Amino acid sequence: MPSTELIPRAARGEIPAIARLISRAEAGMPEARPALAEIYKRAGKAHVIGITGVPGSGKSTLVAALAARLRATGGKVGVVAVDPSSPYSGGAILGDRIRMTELAQDPGVYIRSMATRGAMGGMARATLDAVDILDVGGFNTIIIETVGVGQDEVEIAKASHTTIVVSAPGLGDEIQAIKAGMLEIADIHIVSKCDRSDANRTLTDLKQMLTMGVRAGVASEWPVRVVGISSLNGEGFDELLEAIAKHRAFFKDSASGTQRRLAIAGFRLEKTAENLLIERFQQSAAALTPALAAKLSARQGDPYSLARELLAASLA
Amino acid sequence: MPSTELIPRAARGEIPAIARLISRAEAGMPEARPALAEIYKRAGKAHVIGITGVPGSGKSTLVAALAARLRATGGKVGVVAVDPSSPYSGGAILGDRIRMTELAQDPGVYIRSMATRGAMGGMARATLDAVDILDVGGFNTIIIETVGVGQDEVEIAKASHTTIVVSAPGLGDEIQAIKAGMLEIADIHIVSKCDRSDANRTLTDLKQMLTMGVRAGVASEWPVRVVGISSLNGEGFDELLEAIAKHRAFFKDSASGTQRRLAIAGFRLEKTAENLLIERFQQSAAALTPALAAKLSARQGDPYSLARELLAASLA
Repeated sequence: MPSTELIPRAARGEIPAIARLISRAEAGMPEARPALAEIYKRAGKAHVIGITGVPGSGKSTLVAALAARLRATGGKVGVVAVDPSSPYSGGAILGDRIRMTELAQDPGVYIRSMATRGAMGGMARATLDAVDILDVGGFNTIIIETVGVGQDEVEIAKASHTTIVVSAPGLGDEIQAIKAGMLEIADIHIVSKCDRSDANRTLTDLKQMLTMGVRAGVASEWPVRVVGISSLNGEGFDELLEAIAKHRAFFKDSASGTQRRLAIAGFRLEKTAENLLIERFQQSAAALTPALAAKLSARQGDPYSLARELLAASLA
Repeated sequence: MPSTELIPRAARGEIPAIARLISRAEAGMPEARPALAEIYKRAGKAHVIGITGVPGSGKSTLVAALAARLRATGGKVGVVAVDPSSPYSGGAILGDRIRMTELAQDPGVYIRSMATRGAMGGMARATLDAVDILDVGGFNTIIIETVGVGQDEVEIAKASHTTIVVSAPGLGDEIQAIKAGMLEIADIHIVSKCDRSDANRTLTDLKQMLTMGVRAGVASEWPVRVVGISSLNGEGFDELLEAIAKHRAFFKDSASGTQRRLAIAGFRLEKTAENLLIERFQQSAAALTPALAAKLSARQGDPYSLARELLAASLA
């Protein structure tokens, strides 16, 4: 079925149509682009929450628990996971929808692992396309989960309305968010696994870091929140939901929110352009590469000068 | 110090010079390119082993054990880890050299985590540049470790002379290599954690898969090996070293080896070109993005058509 014909079905919330559109966005199918363009124009209603944290920070468990909580407050909840270590999929590999004990039976929750990586700019582009598809499908809250490693992954989490960074006790002496350069992107910090005895130190450290003005330079009136969470005993989730609701209102009505929307649009635009550019390059380079690769292999030139030759020839 | 002046020092095996050159390659510093071009021309002596496997397959432990074994056979061993879940770094974040109990004191072993991701094509380019730097620095065997998730990561492992795919028992019913599309890239398959009772099933499954001709279509006379390993008790490492030595000889002297060298050069050329292309685009797009982002944010256009506008304007 042509992608444009899937739109009305997706808009009625039909999961098979939504899943197929996301797969096509993920694959970067040119055929799907007019449909994705149309979907973009219809989207923009959902609240998008980006959640990131280093591997082992417990963010996938947290995302599942948060999805269940958000679902309980009404409205549909979508999750787009860009996380190779995500347990949903054993590595974003098993694809599509997973069977999570409580959530899997609920048609109002849709969890999707994105396998797209490697395709230049493609992961960010496909993830944001997927968010739009869920948005049009009537999902009121959409969580983007990314592993907090690598610039692209962190930037995708940042390309959301409310960005949450998860740290966990016991992963090392220091706050993981600092190591990963994620401290300043968080609207809300979560310390997970707060049932553990060493969680208090992580909470204290994090609050102290924030007081020391690590977020200096980020122009915002939003007072960054630090919330301790236990996915095991449910501790902290009420506070988290309240913080999310507050930030949502702030995002909607503040100058910072407007600035943020522009930054997200700029990021999306550049990633989409990079994706199209690489696609164009790869098509024209395919025929030109073998001869230059033979030269490179024989060390009759270096990767940089031969790459410049390849670029000049393929873009000519 | 200019990068070209670091070359003679790196060539003498001086670790600080090697580390600085790798950092500059990783950062994609244009200043470093003439030096990296020169280094490429001098490189080509080392045997490069690519090791990949899904998170939890035990590949980092294996890499450390293998590095120690290779070191014991003489020659210097370098490791370039492109793995966010790598314990060396807690996520390729802590950077540079790590302290691993046995290996850290040995100047003949150098382990380096690459943080580069996100930068388009940059991870593959920087990783292969790093391999050259170590090669010129006199490292006889260089291991590239990548997490077996995502096209780029798998392709980097493939861009080596001998590709090893690690599977582990207990990570799921099926062989993880199949899920990740890594079955056909392996010259040697390793089943790790063979001290576990369920390892035999994984070994049997894997061998059966290979008999069923999953590698059909890959033109090679190399008989793919399956080796069971226990990093805990050292089981299988002699067999592994022997298999690596055999494949190394095969790679050197066969038509398949020549084909493989050309494919690696082609991959490297395209990744380097993509990296330069995106760099060029980002420079010229920076000034043009805000106006188009404002349009996108106001939904006066969709990401695809505005990205095409941005491309046309920035490449004009």
